[in-house]
Amino acid sequence: MGRMKLMVERTHDDMSAVAASLLLGKMYRQGRVNMSITAGSTPATMYETMIPLVRGRSYLDNVYYYNFDEIPLPGEEHGVTMSNLRRLYFEPAEIRSDRIVAFTPENYRSFMDMVRGQGGLDVMVMGLGADGHFCGNLPHVTEFADEVKRVSDDATPTMRDILLGEVGGDESKRPSYYVTLGPRAVMETRELVMIASGVAKAAAVKGIVEGPVTLDLPASVLKLHPHFTLIVDEAAASLLT
Amino acid sequence: MGRMKLMVERTHDDMSAVAASLLLGKMYRQGRVNMSITAGSTPATMYETMIPLVRGRSYLDNVYYYNFDEIPLPGEEHGVTMSNLRRLYFEPAEIRSDRIVAFTPENYRSFMDMVRGQGGLDVMVMGLGADGHFCGNLPHVTEFADEVKRVSDDATPTMRDILLGEVGGDESKRPSYYVTLGPRAVMETRELVMIASGVAKAAAVKGIVEGPVTLDLPASVLKLHPHFTLIVDEAAASLLT
Amino acid sequence: MGRMKLMVERTHDDMSAVAASLLLGKMYRQGRVNMSITAGSTPATMYETMIPLVRGRSYLDNVYYYNFDEIPLPGEEHGVTMSNLRRLYFEPAEIRSDRIVAFTPENYRSFMDMVRGQGGLDVMVMGLGADGHFCGNLPHVTEFADEVKRVSDDATPTMRDILLGEVGGDESKRPSYYVTLGPRAVMETRELVMIASGVAKAAAVKGIVEGPVTLDLPASVLKLHPHFTLIVDEAAASLLT
Amino acid sequence: MGRMKLMVERTHDDMSAVAASLLLGKMYRQGRVNMSITAGSTPATMYETMIPLVRGRSYLDNVYYYNFDEIPLPGEEHGVTMSNLRRLYFEPAEIRSDRIVAFTPENYRSFMDMVRGQGGLDVMVMGLGADGHFCGNLPHVTEFADEVKRVSDDATPTMRDILLGEVGGDESKRPSYYVTLGPRAVMETRELVMIASGVAKAAAVKGIVEGPVTLDLPASVLKLHPHFTLIVDEAAASLLT
Repeated sequence: MGRMKLMVERTHDDMSAVAASLLLGKMYRQGRVNMSITAGSTPATMYETMIPLVRGRSYLDNVYYYNFDEIPLPGEEHGVTMSNLRRLYFEPAEIRSDRIVAFTPENYRSFMDMVRGQGGLDVMVMGLGADGHFCGNLPHVTEFADEVKRVSDDATPTMRDILLGEVGGDESKRPSYYVTLGPRAVMETRELVMIASGVAKAAAVKGIVEGPVTLDLPASVLKLHPHFTLIVDEAAASLLT
Repeated sequence: MGRMKLMVERTHDDMSAVAASLLLGKMYRQGRVNMSITAGSTPATMYETMIPLVRGRSYLDNVYYYNFDEIPLPGEEHGVTMSNLRRLYFEPAEIRSDRIVAFTPENYRSFMDMVRGQGGLDVMVMGLGADGHFCGNLPHVTEFADEVKRVSDDATPTMRDILLGEVGGDESKRPSYYVTLGPRAVMETRELVMIASGVAKAAAVKGIVEGPVTLDLPASVLKLHPHFTLIVDEAAASLLT
Repeated sequence: MGRMKLMVERTHDDMSAVAASLLLGKMYRQGRVNMSITAGSTPATMYETMIPLVRGRSYLDNVYYYNFDEIPLPGEEHGVTMSNLRRLYFEPAEIRSDRIVAFTPENYRSFMDMVRGQGGLDVMVMGLGADGHFCGNLPHVTEFADEVKRVSDDATPTMRDILLGEVGGDESKRPSYYVTLGPRAVMETRELVMIASGVAKAAAVKGIVEGPVTLDLPASVLKLHPHFTLIVDEAAASLLT
Repeated sequence: MGRMKLMVERTHDDMSAVAASLLLGKMYRQGRVNMSITAGSTPATMYETMIPLVRGRSYLDNVYYYNFDEIPLPGEEHGVTMSNLRRLYFEPAEIRSDRIVAFTPENYRSFMDMVRGQGGLDVMVMGLGADGHFCGNLPHVTEFADEVKRVSDDATPTMRDILLGEVGGDESKRPSYYVTLGPRAVMETRELVMIASGVAKAAAVKGIVEGPVTLDLPASVLKLHPHFTLIVDEAAASLLT
């Protein structure tokens, strides 16, 4: 507990190794562990490190996975987040489907009540957007007191473009909204971990570590959590004073 | 862990009994316990309940007390907070002086480094101002990212009057500033507890439970803490929907 | 965590007040709390202290109660333990039946698997027998590695008399066996609390605090638990050096 | 918390990778972490895995190392345990000497009081002897209630040979005694981890997992700890039913 812990590693690979050990360390507990893990490109190496130590281990049957956002794809079984996590981690790690709890447009309103009934989230690992977003909490799209949120494509002037980018620019597949845990639900988690690499994230990292708590940079609120760890590579740390 | 816990008791006395048991429960741990407790009129009955179970107990030598704000009084050994806590609790409970860590204009800058070196704060119990303040965090006087703050008497238009009120309206004793833990330091604590009673606190309680996180009502930030308990009487809860 | 915590109070009433606050402090947590509480005469005053702070509190719906032993009574709905706990606590505190998990001859084998699936036991409060027993772990009746045990009336030369004593000497009601959590299951609990009062317990208390770990005094094993608190009155502490 | 966690890995290397991640996961906490680590041949690969992720990391300055036994060598600055740990881990990982707390014939009596004053041990990783010993707790050399112990070379008929083996059979260097934490001090630790590999350990592993708690196999007591993890390779697990 205490002030946020900042861990600067030299490279993306080192950052990934550290994050993998941190997560495995949580998973090796006795009793049920509720984890929330992130899609995206930042964690890919972290998952590659974890998979050989996860696949086939029945002693990790105590670990449950909870998604924290979803961009539904019209006509598809899985949304962007679930598709990505299946490819990066759930399938190669051979995680049984009854260990995976999807976050969906259908269940997002009651999701946190379900989570609390199952013991609450023990640890969440998140990526960081260049704009300071975490989960689907983009600047001024959610408020700190929001528990969950359905965000429409008219939420901000650029939201349509953002959603279009999530499907590789294919207009025919453009999602019209997404759902996300809000800051309040994220802050309920017992331990928060954020990973960030690359110079594109450097300004956001500096804002989290040195700046005010502001909706201009939503991830700035995370430093108010009593157990928050920020793992970055040197490029992402390059603007820190 | 989880969503903030709201406990509504019928009367101030019941609220005080619950808060006393909650604190004693923390104090009965093995190993060092670092507590931060509040001055003011709200906790007086809580302390009266605790004192007979604290006085003379050597098995509570593991408990250390850390003040979280202070209004220095010119020419006096103790400021407003310490004087009040000595009278309400430290003296009747016969707490040894080496178990009490003052927060002062001299040490406030380095206070949190010292606290972290001693294991961090395990639990803090706070009162609530009608204006939504906690510790010395009055509306717009501190920001959420502030760790500690020295607040001058020109911080807000009404600050001189507020400080005058702290010395009973005696102009010759009017303090010219105070020091306080900021929201960021408070949020580092492992468990936060707030007590509030009386209809004068009802609007602030409603704001915390149902409203946005805003500097207009500083205590609204506390609901982002993963282990926050709010204990109120029915009068203070009377505006909740 | 650490060495066992010994708390000596002057009287049975003071011991009971301390134990009540300790338990209430655990119950005031967020999220589910799994408690195991004891029948018998020692805790009666403790329950009397707790009941006015428990009855009617919906904010304590997070607390679940697990019995840890049972002496079935032929032809009766409830055994000795459940009958006693209903009278002392569950009924006057108005605990809903879906918050109470009985330990029975029917479920004792699978009880701990169920408990683990529900998050494990957070805290257990036990009494102490003059012979050093805790739960149904009488000297040499169970071994430290036993998780649960069905104990027949021929387990020891005096067992028939002990069971007869549990029904007030009425031979027609004499139970022929009982079931209990064994030492291994008890030691899985996150926090253990034992209460003991009166000079009849003084030798057993001395054995726990100062003696070897031995099946001659089963409760001696509890001091190997990293979070064990022993609350006694001065009479029970009178043989300590 | 709960029943001991058994983790079976295919090889010594896999066991070492798992144990390394488990320990690193503990070290990445905020605030001081007090670790106790083991000398010997079993952990060598684990340390090799950890060292590249530990060396040069100032963010691990919160981690303190406490030895748990020592065999003093006449005329040498360091005993067998400290020499071994320096070579395997402290020197290649570049652990600063003010982060290392030796356990010595001079301080062993007061060691646990010092440890408790510094917050207690958070995690201990131990090896397992083929005879079931952990730390210096050989069969019938210590009792479960022992906190610390000085063991002379006449403690058992084979002790002189054991001590001779520790110095490679050089009679001129044969130690005449050793010091160790006893079972009671070990059990105070918040989390216990044991690693064991190779068929030579299979009988002891079987005894821990399936047998009684007995001084014939001292490590059998560890399964009474509420947070005990046993990591073994398939050879060491080969006798389990």
